[in-house]
Amino acid sequence: MNYKMIGRFLAQTLFVVILFMIPALMISLWCGETDAVRGFLLAMAVMALVDGVLWLLCRAAPSAFHAREGFVCVALSWIIMSLFGCLPFYISGAIPTFIDAFFETVSGFTTTGASILSDVESLANGLKYWRSFTHWLGGMGVLVFLLAINPGGGKSSGFTMHLLRAESPGPNVAKLVPKMRKTAAILYLIYIGLTILDIIFLLLGNMPMLDAVCTAFGTAGTGGFGVKNDSIAGYSNYIQWVTTVFMLLFGVNFSCYYLLLLREFRGVFKDEELRLYLGIIGCSILLIVLDLRGYYASLSETVRYAAFQVTSIITTTGFATTDFDLWPSFSKTILLCLMVVGACAGSTGGGIKVARVLLIFKSLRRNIRQIMHPRSVQVIRSSNQVVDERIVDNTNAYLAAYVIIFVFSVIAVSLDGFSTGTNVSAVLACFNNIGPGLEAVGPSCNFSGFSVFSKLVLILDMLAGRLEIFPILVLFSRGTWKRS
Amino acid sequence: MNYKMIGRFLAQTLFVVILFMIPALMISLWCGETDAVRGFLLAMAVMALVDGVLWLLCRAAPSAFHAREGFVCVALSWIIMSLFGCLPFYISGAIPTFIDAFFETVSGFTTTGASILSDVESLANGLKYWRSFTHWLGGMGVLVFLLAINPGGGKSSGFTMHLLRAESPGPNVAKLVPKMRKTAAILYLIYIGLTILDIIFLLLGNMPMLDAVCTAFGTAGTGGFGVKNDSIAGYSNYIQWVTTVFMLLFGVNFSCYYLLLLREFRGVFKDEELRLYLGIIGCSILLIVLDLRGYYASLSETVRYAAFQVTSIITTTGFATTDFDLWPSFSKTILLCLMVVGACAGSTGGGIKVARVLLIFKSLRRNIRQIMHPRSVQVIRSSNQVVDERIVDNTNAYLAAYVIIFVFSVIAVSLDGFSTGTNVSAVLACFNNIGPGLEAVGPSCNFSGFSVFSKLVLILDMLAGRLEIFPILVLFSRGTWKRS
Repeated sequence: MNYKMIGRFLAQTLFVVILFMIPALMISLWCGETDAVRGFLLAMAVMALVDGVLWLLCRAAPSAFHAREGFVCVALSWIIMSLFGCLPFYISGAIPTFIDAFFETVSGFTTTGASILSDVESLANGLKYWRSFTHWLGGMGVLVFLLAINPGGGKSSGFTMHLLRAESPGPNVAKLVPKMRKTAAILYLIYIGLTILDIIFLLLGNMPMLDAVCTAFGTAGTGGFGVKNDSIAGYSNYIQWVTTVFMLLFGVNFSCYYLLLLREFRGVFKDEELRLYLGIIGCSILLIVLDLRGYYASLSETVRYAAFQVTSIITTTGFATTDFDLWPSFSKTILLCLMVVGACAGSTGGGIKVARVLLIFKSLRRNIRQIMHPRSVQVIRSSNQVVDERIVDNTNAYLAAYVIIFVFSVIAVSLDGFSTGTNVSAVLACFNNIGPGLEAVGPSCNFSGFSVFSKLVLILDMLAGRLEIFPILVLFSRGTWKRS
Repeated sequence: MNYKMIGRFLAQTLFVVILFMIPALMISLWCGETDAVRGFLLAMAVMALVDGVLWLLCRAAPSAFHAREGFVCVALSWIIMSLFGCLPFYISGAIPTFIDAFFETVSGFTTTGASILSDVESLANGLKYWRSFTHWLGGMGVLVFLLAINPGGGKSSGFTMHLLRAESPGPNVAKLVPKMRKTAAILYLIYIGLTILDIIFLLLGNMPMLDAVCTAFGTAGTGGFGVKNDSIAGYSNYIQWVTTVFMLLFGVNFSCYYLLLLREFRGVFKDEELRLYLGIIGCSILLIVLDLRGYYASLSETVRYAAFQVTSIITTTGFATTDFDLWPSFSKTILLCLMVVGACAGSTGGGIKVARVLLIFKSLRRNIRQIMHPRSVQVIRSSNQVVDERIVDNTNAYLAAYVIIFVFSVIAVSLDGFSTGTNVSAVLACFNNIGPGLEAVGPSCNFSGFSVFSKLVLILDMLAGRLEIFPILVLFSRGTWKRS
């Protein structure tokens, strides 16, 4: 294990976090929030100190590396980002216990949006901004960001490929252009562009500046932290529709936008994942509207609520405009299933990903065919291209790991004595990076009722969900830490 | 598709069902139950008629066959067995609606034990016997029985192999001896021997004869239909312990008993699946006893309740001695997980099977290793033998199919508006052939509250669970019915 290389990487990650804390500090200074200012300054001081020590110790790292270093780097940097990123909340006293501040920050970076706060509106503005910004940074990934700005990214391309593969969502990392560094930069530029567009549309609906920025951050990262206690419910219908559309857009594979920029409309139109994604959203809205007939005053209102909630859940954002825990059982079950499906691969959304669901179905269909025609050899195609068998194997392993982690998490969380619906939906909501669940963790409730042990389990679920399981499994696997 | 061969097979299956209905008819005659006698006689007449017609039409079947014929044979014969096997309940008026009678019989043959009856004790004795006997016949499989008694079984060994593979539980069908017919006969002899042993032990506890026979049938098939409204709760501690031990025994791979008969104790001791199965049971009992402290009067009582419920659920029998729906959340969650795990492959139990769980874990561990060492080639071993990659692929496909069917079933059942806990546990209880679930389908309740649509979904789940998914998927797959 190349510890120095990992250390140097963690130092770089911490440095980015410090830099990105500056705007939040400025906001708190501007608004005269003394507690928050103290929180940010102290946090930044501690981080600078740790960062300096790490840098000094690990400057001269040998360049030898294996895949496991990549996974360990990713897992550790996300844990460290959250451990230090939560300090402003804790030091300022906004979140009095450390585990809660840690939970809130992991929930932020992993774009989950599960909160332990019952009164968001009482937070200082700087902290509100920082809380939402964690979503934005976590959405596309801090390591992808490092890669995009790193001038030496071209050199150790094997290492960066491992990093990108471990941090990027989906079964297969698409290189948009041959150079990883350029791919990362293009992704971030699209991401920034769409976020600015969202802010402009929100401002046009007379949303206050800070609300617009924070809501756009939560939408872009498909996070779900709001700045109001009732999430998006209190805003106008226009703002709700804008948010619906942008949630949908941020759940799409970003390589589709790159193709659009290149005017390759055919490739976008033929993308099977995109079609299935839009199909699932359309069908779910239709079924829920049918199920909710007579529930709201008018059809347009029903469609608005259904469209918002469906898009929010499948993109794993987790904003809410109504308490869907009060919806009938069928609608709630559809939402639970959408939680598992998740958004497209290569988007900022979580969940199993539509591409994987597609692969799982195709792999199953092939298996049935092979049972019937044992001697035939068949390949799996996606968007008219043959899928590498290693990706098929990996997807099956992903599903297995997903089920196993889900089962053990539900058992662990059930120690707190909540109902089956609460336990199952709390784990689904955290593991798939959604935010609200059902019953005791429904949209009108929060996660503060869980024990410290359950919160730790849910924190690991959030990290495993965001990093697509394997980095966390590698981190906890015995073989990783053996001398080779 | 060789329709005539399938028809001939269905005729043979129906003939076996008619034969096995005779003892039930005798009991009803002996007890003077006129309604039940009428039910049995009319049912047998209808079946004989259909059987005769099928036989005449399909006598001269060509011997060409493919794997799909095997799967279709298995799926259709189980559906037809249940369609005709439910006639005595329906004609006698004991179960007034046909869908309920069908549900109860599918639940019987698939060894699920989910009931729509609220008062079992009012059933005629002949019907009680028939209801429990469906468990016994379904446990080892009627096609395995046909194979065992079929003197021509040696001839078309390819076909019989396909049948056995489709009906026998587990990822891999173990041939005990080179001839399939002899393997089937050995399995049935062990099955009969253990059942008789169970009856003797129950009679020693002063259980009435009919109760003992029916309880032994329910235990042997890991079915769970009882003859009392409170399942096994009203019987003595001795009978509860006897049933616990025999449930555990019937959840073990029957090839272990064959090895014991051959005095190959080493092979049994080294069986990884058996060790994991016993390990899971032991740990679950321990955890539940700890969780239930202070819940019952004494430790011995707690151990008895925990051991009974754990064994009943993991072997997917579904007997109950207490209403575990009232247990604390942690214990209930453990039981829910045991529902999914199920018993050993090659036993009469349902669920995913311990052998598959083991394979899924091993396959996942290999995948993590391969991520870390991409160039290495690694095999999976089980009980020191290399596992065929096709079995690994098949197990992954099985898991995928399992998750997909589970999700769609829960969505369908949720239309009835029950709680999430009810829907999830109802599907788990049927799909894994257990019987009782939680909340509205808990041990003190029954399945009569569901709509006809939900009952049909649960019927398909029960069949898919018993036949290990693929025969039912093949039956509903377009490719099966195309002309080749």
